[in-house]
Amino acid sequence: MQPVQELVRQLTLEEKAALCSGATAWRTEAVERLGIPSIVLSDGPHGLRRPVREDELGGPSVPATCFPTASAMACSWDRQLVREVAQALGAEARAAGVHVLLGPGVNMKRTPLCGRNFEYFSEDPYLAGELAAAYVEGLQSTGVSACVKHFAANNQETDRMTVDAVVDERTLREIYLAVFERVIRKARPWSVMCSYNRLNGVYASQHRWLLTEVLREAWGFDGLVVSDWGAVEDRVAGLAAGLDLEMPGPSPANDARIVEAVRTGQLDEAVLDRAVERILTLVQKVTSPSNPAPPVDVDAHHRLARRAAAACMVLLKNEGALLPLQPDRHRSVALLGGMAAAPQFQGGGSSRVNPTRTESALEAWREVAPEVSVSYHQGYRQDGGRDAALLRAAVDAARVADVAVVFVGLPDGVESEGYDRKDMALPEGHVALIREVARVQPRTVVVLHNGAPVDMAGWVGQVPAVLLAGLAGQASGAAAVDVLLGRVNPSGKLAETYPTRLEQTPAFFDFPGEGGHVRYGERVFIGYRYYDARDVEPLFPFGHGLSYTTFAYGPLALSRSTIGPDESLDVTLWVRNTGERAGQEVVQLYVGPRQARVARPVKELKGFDKVALAPGESRPVRFVLTALDLAYYDPARRAWVAEPGLYDILVGASSRDIRVQATVELTQGLHAETRLDEESTVRAWMQHPAGRLALERALPPELFGRLAGQPPTSFLWELPLKKLSLLSQGALDESAIRRVVAALRG
Amino acid sequence: MQPVQELVRQLTLEEKAALCSGATAWRTEAVERLGIPSIVLSDGPHGLRRPVREDELGGPSVPATCFPTASAMACSWDRQLVREVAQALGAEARAAGVHVLLGPGVNMKRTPLCGRNFEYFSEDPYLAGELAAAYVEGLQSTGVSACVKHFAANNQETDRMTVDAVVDERTLREIYLAVFERVIRKARPWSVMCSYNRLNGVYASQHRWLLTEVLREAWGFDGLVVSDWGAVEDRVAGLAAGLDLEMPGPSPANDARIVEAVRTGQLDEAVLDRAVERILTLVQKVTSPSNPAPPVDVDAHHRLARRAAAACMVLLKNEGALLPLQPDRHRSVALLGGMAAAPQFQGGGSSRVNPTRTESALEAWREVAPEVSVSYHQGYRQDGGRDAALLRAAVDAARVADVAVVFVGLPDGVESEGYDRKDMALPEGHVALIREVARVQPRTVVVLHNGAPVDMAGWVGQVPAVLLAGLAGQASGAAAVDVLLGRVNPSGKLAETYPTRLEQTPAFFDFPGEGGHVRYGERVFIGYRYYDARDVEPLFPFGHGLSYTTFAYGPLALSRSTIGPDESLDVTLWVRNTGERAGQEVVQLYVGPRQARVARPVKELKGFDKVALAPGESRPVRFVLTALDLAYYDPARRAWVAEPGLYDILVGASSRDIRVQATVELTQGLHAETRLDEESTVRAWMQHPAGRLALERALPPELFGRLAGQPPTSFLWELPLKKLSLLSQGALDESAIRRVVAALRG
Repeated sequence: MQPVQELVRQLTLEEKAALCSGATAWRTEAVERLGIPSIVLSDGPHGLRRPVREDELGGPSVPATCFPTASAMACSWDRQLVREVAQALGAEARAAGVHVLLGPGVNMKRTPLCGRNFEYFSEDPYLAGELAAAYVEGLQSTGVSACVKHFAANNQETDRMTVDAVVDERTLREIYLAVFERVIRKARPWSVMCSYNRLNGVYASQHRWLLTEVLREAWGFDGLVVSDWGAVEDRVAGLAAGLDLEMPGPSPANDARIVEAVRTGQLDEAVLDRAVERILTLVQKVTSPSNPAPPVDVDAHHRLARRAAAACMVLLKNEGALLPLQPDRHRSVALLGGMAAAPQFQGGGSSRVNPTRTESALEAWREVAPEVSVSYHQGYRQDGGRDAALLRAAVDAARVADVAVVFVGLPDGVESEGYDRKDMALPEGHVALIREVARVQPRTVVVLHNGAPVDMAGWVGQVPAVLLAGLAGQASGAAAVDVLLGRVNPSGKLAETYPTRLEQTPAFFDFPGEGGHVRYGERVFIGYRYYDARDVEPLFPFGHGLSYTTFAYGPLALSRSTIGPDESLDVTLWVRNTGERAGQEVVQLYVGPRQARVARPVKELKGFDKVALAPGESRPVRFVLTALDLAYYDPARRAWVAEPGLYDILVGASSRDIRVQATVELTQGLHAETRLDEESTVRAWMQHPAGRLALERALPPELFGRLAGQPPTSFLWELPLKKLSLLSQGALDESAIRRVVAALRG
Repeated sequence: MQPVQELVRQLTLEEKAALCSGATAWRTEAVERLGIPSIVLSDGPHGLRRPVREDELGGPSVPATCFPTASAMACSWDRQLVREVAQALGAEARAAGVHVLLGPGVNMKRTPLCGRNFEYFSEDPYLAGELAAAYVEGLQSTGVSACVKHFAANNQETDRMTVDAVVDERTLREIYLAVFERVIRKARPWSVMCSYNRLNGVYASQHRWLLTEVLREAWGFDGLVVSDWGAVEDRVAGLAAGLDLEMPGPSPANDARIVEAVRTGQLDEAVLDRAVERILTLVQKVTSPSNPAPPVDVDAHHRLARRAAAACMVLLKNEGALLPLQPDRHRSVALLGGMAAAPQFQGGGSSRVNPTRTESALEAWREVAPEVSVSYHQGYRQDGGRDAALLRAAVDAARVADVAVVFVGLPDGVESEGYDRKDMALPEGHVALIREVARVQPRTVVVLHNGAPVDMAGWVGQVPAVLLAGLAGQASGAAAVDVLLGRVNPSGKLAETYPTRLEQTPAFFDFPGEGGHVRYGERVFIGYRYYDARDVEPLFPFGHGLSYTTFAYGPLALSRSTIGPDESLDVTLWVRNTGERAGQEVVQLYVGPRQARVARPVKELKGFDKVALAPGESRPVRFVLTALDLAYYDPARRAWVAEPGLYDILVGASSRDIRVQATVELTQGLHAETRLDEESTVRAWMQHPAGRLALERALPPELFGRLAGQPPTSFLWELPLKKLSLLSQGALDESAIRRVVAALRG
C-alpha cells in the first residue's frame, strides 16, 4: 500500500464515503484501483466466531478454541496468563484470515443481572483495565487488532440500543471511562468500538465529547473507532463526532448522506479525510505481517484453555479442608447434575464460539483418577427443572458414595447478549439437588458454572465446599477436576462481589432504568465500593478466594512516609507460603483517604500481583504508587485532585481480608486551591488567607469585624459571598462584591 | 380598597415595580394615594418571630408562644391538633399585626443531617401534606395567610443558596412536589415561598416550570409567590417565571430593572400587572377582617402548647412496662442531665421564638407529683461535654433512687437553619451519662430532646425505656412529665425512620452533594421506602410508637374486590382498646403494588387516622382509596399511571407492624397503553394486539414468521423496531419502519 495520505488524495469523494461503511457484515471496503485491500473483523472476545457463510451476520460458525470468558479470566488476576491466551486468540485469528478481533469487552459490572456480564472482567476499573491491557498487548503482538468495547456506559442489555445512561461526570471519569483510559494509555489498542446506548442524552455513536474530546484529545488514542453492529443513528453526526467506520455494511444510504453533507458544506471534507486516514492506517497495520500465518495447534490451544480455566477457578469455601479430594480416602465419588457431563462454559450471543472440542468433568475424572469409583446422575432436567425420579437417583448415589460433587449453574440461554436476567436464582432443580444431596452426604462439594453471581443463600451454609468454576471455556470440566483433585492448587479470586441477595446490590433501584433512562444513582459506589461505604456484609467479598495452602504477609515497607504531588512511593512486603503445597497468592493493594471534600470510597484497588510460592518460600512483592493513585475527579476543576492529608495503604488477600497496612501523608494537594468566587461561602473566603485579606480590605470594618467574630458554626459563614449585601445595610452592593472577587484575582 | 384590577390600572409603572419588592425587611410597599396598605410578614412556623426593632432582619424578638416544632407536631399524626395550634398561631399573629406567617415548612427529610429538619414534618409526602394542610386551614381560618415553604427541593442547608438539586421528574412528582401539591389542592394557601436553591440547574426563584407550569397551571394555585429572604437572583427572569414578591426590601436596583425591562420590551407589562394583582389580592384578603384582633390569652396558649407537646411524644421503648412511673412504687426519682432543668425545645435560625415562658421537667415534676422525692443533677457540661465530677454525682444519685430519668438531646446550636449536622452523634457527656447511669440503675428512662434522629446504638440496648420528647416547644418539659407519670397516655408515632447508623440512610452517598450539585440518587426511595426496598432493618421504623394500653385490629372490609380507574374503594376496620387505660391509636394504611414496570416502593402511606378509645371500646376506622392512590408518575407520558393487577392494602400500627391486609385488583390501567414507536422493542410490538397486526401486514412474511417463532427470551425480541432492518437483508429499510409506525397510528 502507498502512504495513507497519498491514498486519500487519490480517492474520490464517493470512494471515501464508501470506505466509511463495511462492504459486508464483516469486511471493510476494498478499492482495487489503488490496491487498498479489504480487512476482516470478527466477533470475540474469548474465541473466534467466524460464520461459515462468512458474509452473514449469524448462522453456524467455524470451530475455534473457546477460552475462558472474561468473567472467568478476570478471576485469575494474572496479567501474563491473559496475555498468553490473547496471543493464542491472535494466532487463530490470523490463521482464519481475521484482522480485527472484537474484544476485549471492558464494561463494568454495575449489577449481577446484566446479561452480558460474562463477557466483561470486573466491577473494578483498575483490575479490568490491567487485564484488558494485557489482552490487547497479547493479541496485537500477533499483528491482529484488538477492538476495545463497548465505549461507553453500556452496562445492560435491556433497551441497549436506545437507553440513555444518565451518569455524572465524576462517576464516568472514575469508573466507567477509567477502565478504557487505562487500556488505551497502557496498551494502545488499534481500535475501539462505540456502544449502542445514549450517554447523557446523546448516542455514543455520535457523542463528540466521548469519541473525540475524551478518547482522542485527552487520552491520545490514535486508532480507529468502529460502530457496534447497527449502532449508527445519524451517520453524518457520527462522522463529525469521531466515529470512523460504520458496521455492518454495505450502507449505501449513509454513504450517500456523507457525500451530500460534504457537497452542501454541512460536513468539512477534512473530517471525512481524517476518518478515511484512520481506516487505511488500520488496514495497513493489520495487513503488514508478510509472513504467512502458521497453522493453529488445536491440541496445544486446548491444553492452554484447560490450564487457563484451572487458574480462573475460585475456591469460595472449603470447610474442614474437604478439598482437594484424595483418591486414597475418597474412593467412591458421586458426580451429580447434568453439568458434570455437559458443562455450561460460555454464554449466548455474538461471543458464542463453536468449540474445537469439549471436555466434561465426567470424562476428565475417568482419565485423571481412574482408581476412583465414579457414579454419575443427571439429578435435574436439562432445562434446570426439578424431576423427582432424577433427583431420587442422584440422592441415592450421594448417600452411598464417600463424597458427592454437585455440578450446577445457569443453563444455556440464561446468560446472553441481548437481554438481562430478572433475578439471581439458580434453576429450581439445581437448588433442590444441592439441598437434598447435602442432607444425606456431609462431604458435598458444589461446583458452579455461571458468569455472574447467583443466589446461594438457600444452601451455601449446608455444604462444606464450593468451587466457582465460572464460564471457563471448552476445557472447564476438565479444569474443575484438576482443581478438585489437587492437580492444580486453586488461585483465583473474585473479580466481583458476590452479594447475599439482590436487594443488597448497588444498582438495585436503578436497573434496568425506566422511561428510556437508566440513572447511575449509586454513582462511584459500584461493587465493593458500595458494600464498604454502606457497611453491608456481602456473601463473598471482592478479591476473595481460598487456596490449598496458606500465606503469611510480612509488614509493609514504604520508601517514604510523605509524598508530594509529583513523587512516587514504593510499597514492599514479603509474602510467605506457610503451608505444605506450592501455590499462588493474589496480593491486593488498596488505597483509602482519611479525609475528603466529597463522598469517596473507603478504599480502591490500586495494585495487585500474583506470586507463585513453593512451600516455605518467601518473595517480595513491590508496588509503586503516585499521588494520582490517591485522587478523585473534580468536574468543576476538570482535574484529578487529591487533598493533602493521610491516606491508608492496605494490603491483603481480599477486599475484606486486609493483612497489613500503613499510612502515607500527601504533603500538598495534587491540584491548586479551589477558585474562590462570589458563590463561595464566607467560610471559604475567611479560611483562605488571600481571600480573607481581600475581604478585610473591601468590607466595611464593622461588617468584617462581625464576620470575623462569629463562631465556627455560624449561620453567617455559610452564606455565599454574594449574599453578604443582605447584611450590610446598603453598604455593600453587588458591584462591590464583584470588586472583592476581582481584587483576589489580582 | 378598590377592586384589584382597578388599582392596577391606576398605578404607574414605577409604582408597580416598587410593589414587587418589600418596603422593609418584613413589610410590603404601601401606595398611600390609592389607599393600598402595607402588610407584614413574619417568621414562623411554630411561633411568631417578630423582631423588637420591627424592620430589622435579626435581633431580639417579642415574646410569643413557642409551640412544638413541625418535627414534633408531625409525630402527633393529628390533623385536628395541628389545626388547633395553627389557629392559636393565627390569633397571635393578628394580635401582633402580622398578616402572613411564614409557614408551614413542608420540605422532605432526605437525611437525618439536614440542619432544618426540625422545621419540617416528615419523610413521607402524604403525612407531611395532610398535616400541613391542616396547619394552613387552621391558620387561614383566622384571616392570616399561610406561606408554604420552601418550594422546592430545599432539603439541606449546606450551600443552600447556590446548590443545584439534581432530581429526576418522577422523584419530584412523587415525593418532593407531591407534598406541596397535596397542601395546595387541599387547603388552598394564599401564598407560597420559593426556595434559595437551584433545581436541575435553574434557581427556584426564576424557575418557570416550577412556579408557573406546575404550581399554577397544573395545580391551580392562585395565590402569591414570595421569594425566600434573599433568594432573588435575576429579578426580571423571576418575575417572568412567576415570582411575584421579592423580600426583603427595599430593592431599588431590582425595581429599576423591572421598569427598564418593560420599557425595552424585554418583559411584557401584562406579566408585571399579574404579579401586582396577586400582591394586591393578598393584601386585600389579609386586611379584610374588620373586627379588631382579640388579645392573646397567653396562659391558654401555654396550656395548648403543653397538651400539644404531650400528644407529640413518642414512646420508643418500654420494656417491662416501666413507664408510666407510679408515685406509690417509684417513691424517689433521680432527674439527671441539664436538659431536665433547661430542656432543648426548639432549633436555631429564623424560626427561633422568644417564648412567653418555659416549664422544665424539674419544675413540672414538683408540681405534678410532689409526693415523689426528686433529686436533680446536671450530669454533663452545658455544652454537652463530659465532666467527671458532674457525672459521678449523677450516677451516685441514680444508684440510690428507685428510678432514674436521664434527659439528653442535641444542645443549642447543633440543629439550626444555615448549616447541617455532620453526623448523628449525641454529645459525649450525654452518652456517658446514659451509659454510666444504666450500669447502676436498671430502671433507667431516657428522655430525648432532638429534632432529628440521633445515634442510639451505643446505649439503647442498655435501658428499658426511651421517650422521644423531640423539640416540642416551651412546655415540653412539663409535657414529658405528663407522659412519664401517665397523666397523658403517649400516642405519638415516628414521622420519620430512626436508623441504626448513618451508613444505612438513603441519601448517604449524596448528601450534601459535591461541586455545587446534590444528586437525589436514592430517587423515590426516601425514608421507609428505602429501608423496605433494600430490606434493611432500621432502629425504629417509620410509624412506630408505643402506648400504655394495647390495641387489636379487626379484619379489613373492602367495599369491592376490584377497582376501575374512575372508581373508589372503601376500606373499613374496627380497632379495639384491649388494655386497661384510655388511649389513642394512629392507624396507618399503606398500599403496595404486586407488579410494576418501574422500580416502585414496596408500600406507601395513603391514609391514617388517630382514634381515641376507652378501655374495651371499639370503633370503626374508614379510609377511601381511588385508583390514583395506586399510581406512580410516568414522565414520558406526563401522567400518573397505574398498571392493572393486584395491589396490597396494608393496615397497621407502624410501617413494620402491619396487622391486617387485603388485596384489590385494578381491572384496567389508569392510563392508556404506552405509545408504540420505532424505539419500542419488537417484544412490545408483538405483545400489543394492534402492533402485532401492523407488523404482520408490513413485514416480509418470512421475517414476520421468524420473529413470531422466537422463544420469549429471544435476543431478537429485545431489538428496537427500527433495528429490524439489520435482519431483513434489505427487505425493510427505514422508511418501511416509519410506515409501520404510521399504520399503527391509523
